[in-house]
Amino acid sequence: MMDPLKEQPVGSIAVIFISELSPDNRGYPEMSDRMAALAEEQTGFLGWVSLRGDAGLGITISWWRDRISALEWKQVAEHRLAQRLGSERWYRRWSLQVCTIDESRVFDRMAVEPE
Amino acid sequence: MMDPLKEQPVGSIAVIFISELSPDNRGYPEMSDRMAALAEEQTGFLGWVSLRGDAGLGITISWWRDRISALEWKQVAEHRLAQRLGSERWYRRWSLQVCTIDESRVFDRMAVEPE
Repeated sequence: MMDPLKEQPVGSIAVIFISELSPDNRGYPEMSDRMAALAEEQTGFLGWVSLRGDAGLGITISWWRDRISALEWKQVAEHRLAQRLGSERWYRRWSLQVCTIDESRVFDRMAVEPE
Repeated sequence: MMDPLKEQPVGSIAVIFISELSPDNRGYPEMSDRMAALAEEQTGFLGWVSLRGDAGLGITISWWRDRISALEWKQVAEHRLAQRLGSERWYRRWSLQVCTIDESRVFDRMAVEPE
Protein backbone atom coordinates (compact mmCIF):
# COMPACT_ATOMS: atom_id res chain seq x y z
CA MET A 1 0.00 0.00 0.00
CA MET A 2 1.42 3.39 -0.96
CA ASP A 3 1.15 6.21 1.58
CA PRO A 4 -2.64 6.56 1.92
CA LEU A 5 -2.34 10.02 3.48
CA LYS A 6 -0.62 11.56 0.50
CA GLU A 7 -2.27 14.70 -0.84
CA GLN A 8 -4.25 13.97 -4.02
CA PRO A 9 -4.64 16.60 -6.74
CA VAL A 10 -7.88 18.53 -7.11
CA GLY A 11 -9.68 17.21 -10.19
CA SER A 12 -8.37 13.67 -9.77
CA ILE A 13 -10.68 10.72 -9.10
CA ALA A 14 -11.39 8.78 -5.91
CA VAL A 15 -13.12 5.41 -6.29
CA ILE A 16 -14.82 4.37 -3.05
CA PHE A 17 -15.60 0.66 -2.82
CA ILE A 18 -17.43 -0.59 0.29
CA SER A 19 -18.20 -4.28 0.65
CA GLU A 20 -19.60 -6.97 2.92
CA LEU A 21 -17.81 -10.29 2.57
CA SER A 22 -19.82 -13.48 2.22
CA PRO A 23 -18.76 -16.59 4.21
CA ASP A 24 -17.18 -18.09 1.04
CA ASN A 25 -13.77 -16.46 0.72
CA ARG A 26 -11.97 -19.18 -1.28
CA GLY A 27 -9.31 -17.43 -3.33
CA TYR A 28 -10.22 -13.99 -2.05
CA PRO A 29 -6.99 -13.01 -0.21
CA GLU A 30 -4.86 -14.04 -3.20
CA MET A 31 -7.07 -12.17 -5.66
CA SER A 32 -7.11 -9.11 -3.44
CA ASP A 33 -3.29 -9.02 -3.31
CA ARG A 34 -3.08 -9.62 -7.06
CA MET A 35 -5.52 -6.75 -7.81
CA ALA A 36 -3.52 -4.37 -5.63
CA ALA A 37 -0.30 -5.25 -7.48
CA LEU A 38 -2.02 -4.98 -10.87
CA ALA A 39 -3.63 -1.61 -10.07
CA GLU A 40 -0.23 -0.21 -9.15
CA GLU A 41 0.98 -0.96 -12.69
CA GLN A 42 -1.83 1.01 -14.37
CA THR A 43 -1.27 4.34 -16.04
CA GLY A 44 -2.75 7.14 -13.94
CA PHE A 45 -2.82 5.14 -10.70
CA LEU A 46 -2.17 7.48 -7.75
CA GLY A 47 -2.61 5.25 -4.70
CA TRP A 48 -4.99 3.15 -2.64
CA VAL A 49 -5.96 2.29 0.91
CA SER A 50 -7.96 -0.65 2.24
CA LEU A 51 -9.29 -1.65 5.66
CA ARG A 52 -11.62 -4.45 6.74
CA GLY A 53 -13.38 -4.62 10.09
CA ASP A 54 -14.25 -7.64 12.21
CA ALA A 55 -17.81 -7.78 10.91
CA GLY A 56 -16.62 -8.34 7.32
CA LEU A 57 -17.23 -4.73 6.28
CA GLY A 58 -14.45 -3.35 4.10
CA ILE A 59 -13.54 0.03 2.63
CA THR A 60 -11.15 0.35 -0.30
CA ILE A 61 -10.35 3.70 -1.88
CA SER A 62 -8.24 4.02 -5.01
CA TRP A 63 -7.10 7.30 -6.53
CA TRP A 64 -6.66 7.95 -10.25
CA ARG A 65 -5.24 10.85 -12.22
CA ASP A 66 -8.40 11.22 -14.29
CA ARG A 67 -11.65 9.54 -15.27
CA ILE A 68 -10.06 7.79 -18.23
CA SER A 69 -7.46 5.99 -16.12
CA ALA A 70 -10.14 4.91 -13.60
CA LEU A 71 -12.27 3.60 -16.47
CA GLU A 72 -9.34 1.77 -18.07
CA TRP A 73 -8.67 0.00 -14.78
CA LYS A 74 -12.29 -1.11 -14.65
CA GLN A 75 -11.84 -2.69 -18.11
CA VAL A 76 -8.58 -4.59 -17.48
CA ALA A 77 -9.42 -8.24 -18.30
CA GLU A 78 -8.00 -9.75 -15.13
CA HIS A 79 -9.79 -7.12 -13.05
CA ARG A 80 -13.06 -7.86 -14.85
CA LEU A 81 -12.72 -11.50 -13.85
CA ALA A 82 -12.13 -10.42 -10.23
CA GLN A 83 -15.23 -8.22 -10.37
CA ARG A 84 -17.31 -11.14 -11.65
CA LEU A 85 -16.03 -13.52 -8.95
CA GLY A 86 -16.60 -10.80 -6.39
CA SER A 87 -20.29 -10.56 -7.15
CA GLU A 88 -20.72 -14.33 -7.62
CA ARG A 89 -18.79 -15.54 -4.62
CA TRP A 90 -16.98 -13.15 -2.29
CA TYR A 91 -19.26 -10.21 -1.70
CA ARG A 92 -22.74 -10.32 -0.27
CA ARG A 93 -23.18 -6.63 -0.99
CA TRP A 94 -21.06 -3.82 -2.30
CA SER A 95 -21.34 -0.17 -3.23
CA LEU A 96 -19.07 1.75 -5.56
CA GLN A 97 -18.79 5.49 -6.05
CA VAL A 98 -16.65 7.28 -8.60
CA CYS A 99 -15.95 10.79 -7.35
CA THR A 100 -14.12 13.92 -8.47
CA ILE A 101 -11.92 15.50 -5.80
CA ASP A 102 -12.94 19.14 -5.34
CA GLU A 103 -10.81 19.88 -2.31
CA SER A 104 -7.85 18.15 -0.72
CA ARG A 105 -5.99 18.94 2.51
CA VAL A 106 -3.38 17.13 4.56
CA PHE A 107 -2.02 17.61 8.06
CA ASP A 108 1.24 16.29 9.46
CA ARG A 109 2.00 17.20 13.05
CA MET A 110 5.73 16.73 12.48
CA ALA A 111 5.56 19.64 10.05
CA VAL A 112 3.95 21.81 12.77
CA GLU A 113 5.82 20.70 15.90
CA PRO A 114 9.05 18.96 14.92
CA GLU A 115 10.20 16.60 17.68
CA MET B 1 -23.79 3.84 11.85
CA MET B 2 -26.42 4.02 9.13
CA ASP B 3 -26.24 1.46 6.32
CA PRO B 4 -22.88 2.33 4.71
CA LEU B 5 -23.74 0.43 1.52
CA LYS B 6 -26.76 2.54 0.70
CA GLU B 7 -26.75 4.04 -2.80
CA GLN B 8 -25.82 7.74 -2.71
CA PRO B 9 -27.20 10.18 -5.26
CA VAL B 10 -25.06 11.37 -8.15
CA GLY B 11 -24.07 14.98 -7.44
CA SER B 12 -23.97 14.51 -3.67
CA ILE B 13 -20.76 14.90 -1.67
CA ALA B 14 -18.44 12.30 -0.14
CA VAL B 15 -15.96 13.52 2.47
CA ILE B 16 -13.03 11.11 2.82
CA PHE B 17 -11.07 11.48 6.06
CA ILE B 18 -8.02 9.26 6.57
CA SER B 19 -6.03 9.51 9.78
CA GLU B 20 -3.18 8.07 11.80
CA LEU B 21 -3.82 8.16 15.55
CA SER B 22 -1.13 9.42 17.90
CA PRO B 23 -0.42 7.52 21.14
CA ASP B 24 -2.41 10.12 23.14
CA ASN B 25 -6.06 9.18 22.73
CA ARG B 26 -7.44 10.76 25.93
CA GLY B 27 -11.04 11.66 25.22
CA TYR B 28 -10.91 10.40 21.65
CA PRO B 29 -13.47 7.55 21.77
CA GLU B 30 -16.03 9.79 23.52
CA MET B 31 -15.49 12.64 21.05
CA SER B 32 -15.69 10.28 18.12
CA ASP B 33 -19.06 8.92 19.30
CA ARG B 34 -20.31 12.44 19.99
CA MET B 35 -19.33 13.66 16.52
CA ALA B 36 -21.12 10.74 14.87
CA ALA B 37 -24.32 11.53 16.81
CA LEU B 38 -24.00 15.25 16.06
CA ALA B 39 -23.38 14.71 12.32
CA GLU B 40 -26.55 12.62 12.10
CA GLU B 41 -28.56 15.64 13.29
CA GLN B 42 -27.26 17.94 10.54
CA THR B 43 -29.35 19.02 7.59
CA GLY B 44 -28.26 17.25 4.43
CA PHE B 45 -26.47 14.41 6.23
CA LEU B 46 -26.82 11.20 4.18
CA GLY B 47 -24.69 8.67 6.08
CA TRP B 48 -21.24 7.67 7.22
CA VAL B 49 -18.90 4.73 7.65
CA SER B 50 -15.76 4.40 9.74
CA LEU B 51 -13.12 1.69 10.18
CA ARG B 52 -9.81 1.68 12.03
CA GLY B 53 -7.06 -0.90 11.53
CA ASP B 54 -4.62 -2.33 14.04
CA ALA B 55 -1.84 0.05 13.03
CA GLY B 56 -3.92 3.10 14.01
CA LEU B 57 -4.88 3.94 10.42
CA GLY B 58 -8.51 4.98 10.09
CA ILE B 59 -10.88 5.74 7.23
CA THR B 60 -14.08 7.70 7.79
CA ILE B 61 -16.39 8.63 4.92
CA SER B 62 -19.40 10.88 5.38
CA TRP B 63 -21.98 11.64 2.69
CA TRP B 64 -23.81 14.94 2.29
CA ARG B 65 -26.65 16.09 0.08
CA ASP B 66 -24.65 19.00 -1.28
CA ARG B 67 -21.57 21.12 -0.75
CA ILE B 68 -23.40 23.58 1.48
CA SER B 69 -24.42 20.92 4.00
CA ALA B 70 -20.87 19.51 4.08
CA LEU B 71 -19.52 23.02 4.65
CA GLU B 72 -22.06 23.75 7.38
CA TRP B 73 -21.00 20.60 9.22
CA LYS B 74 -17.38 21.75 9.06
CA GLN B 75 -18.44 25.01 10.76
CA VAL B 76 -20.51 23.55 13.63
CA ALA B 77 -18.89 24.93 16.81
CA GLU B 78 -18.60 21.63 18.64
CA HIS B 79 -17.16 20.00 15.53
CA ARG B 80 -14.62 22.80 15.18
CA LEU B 81 -13.43 22.10 18.71
CA ALA B 82 -13.08 18.40 17.82
CA GLN B 83 -11.08 19.33 14.71
CA ARG B 84 -8.74 21.46 16.80
CA LEU B 85 -8.21 18.73 19.42
CA GLY B 86 -7.72 16.25 16.60
CA SER B 87 -4.78 18.13 15.17
CA GLU B 88 -3.33 19.06 18.58
CA ARG B 89 -3.66 15.73 20.30
CA TRP B 90 -5.27 12.73 18.62
CA TYR B 91 -3.98 12.63 15.07
CA ARG B 92 -0.38 12.43 14.00
CA ARG B 93 -1.40 12.88 10.38
CA TRP B 94 -4.62 13.18 8.46
CA SER B 95 -5.85 13.78 4.93
CA LEU B 96 -9.25 15.08 3.93
CA GLN B 97 -10.86 15.10 0.50
CA VAL B 98 -14.18 16.65 -0.43
CA CYS B 99 -15.51 14.91 -3.54
CA THR B 100 -18.52 15.09 -5.85
CA ILE B 101 -20.08 11.73 -6.66
CA ASP B 102 -20.19 11.27 -10.45
CA GLU B 103 -21.31 7.67 -10.49
CA SER B 104 -22.86 5.38 -7.90
CA ARG B 105 -23.67 1.68 -8.08
CA VAL B 106 -24.72 -0.91 -5.54
CA PHE B 107 -24.94 -4.70 -5.62
CA ASP B 108 -26.94 -6.93 -3.31
CA ARG B 109 -26.71 -10.64 -3.98
CA MET B 110 -30.06 -11.23 -2.29
CA ALA B 111 -31.63 -9.17 -5.06
CA VAL B 112 -30.00 -11.42 -7.69
CA GLU B 113 -30.28 -14.87 -6.08
CA PRO B 114 -32.94 -14.78 -3.37
CA GLU B 115 -32.31 -17.52 -0.78
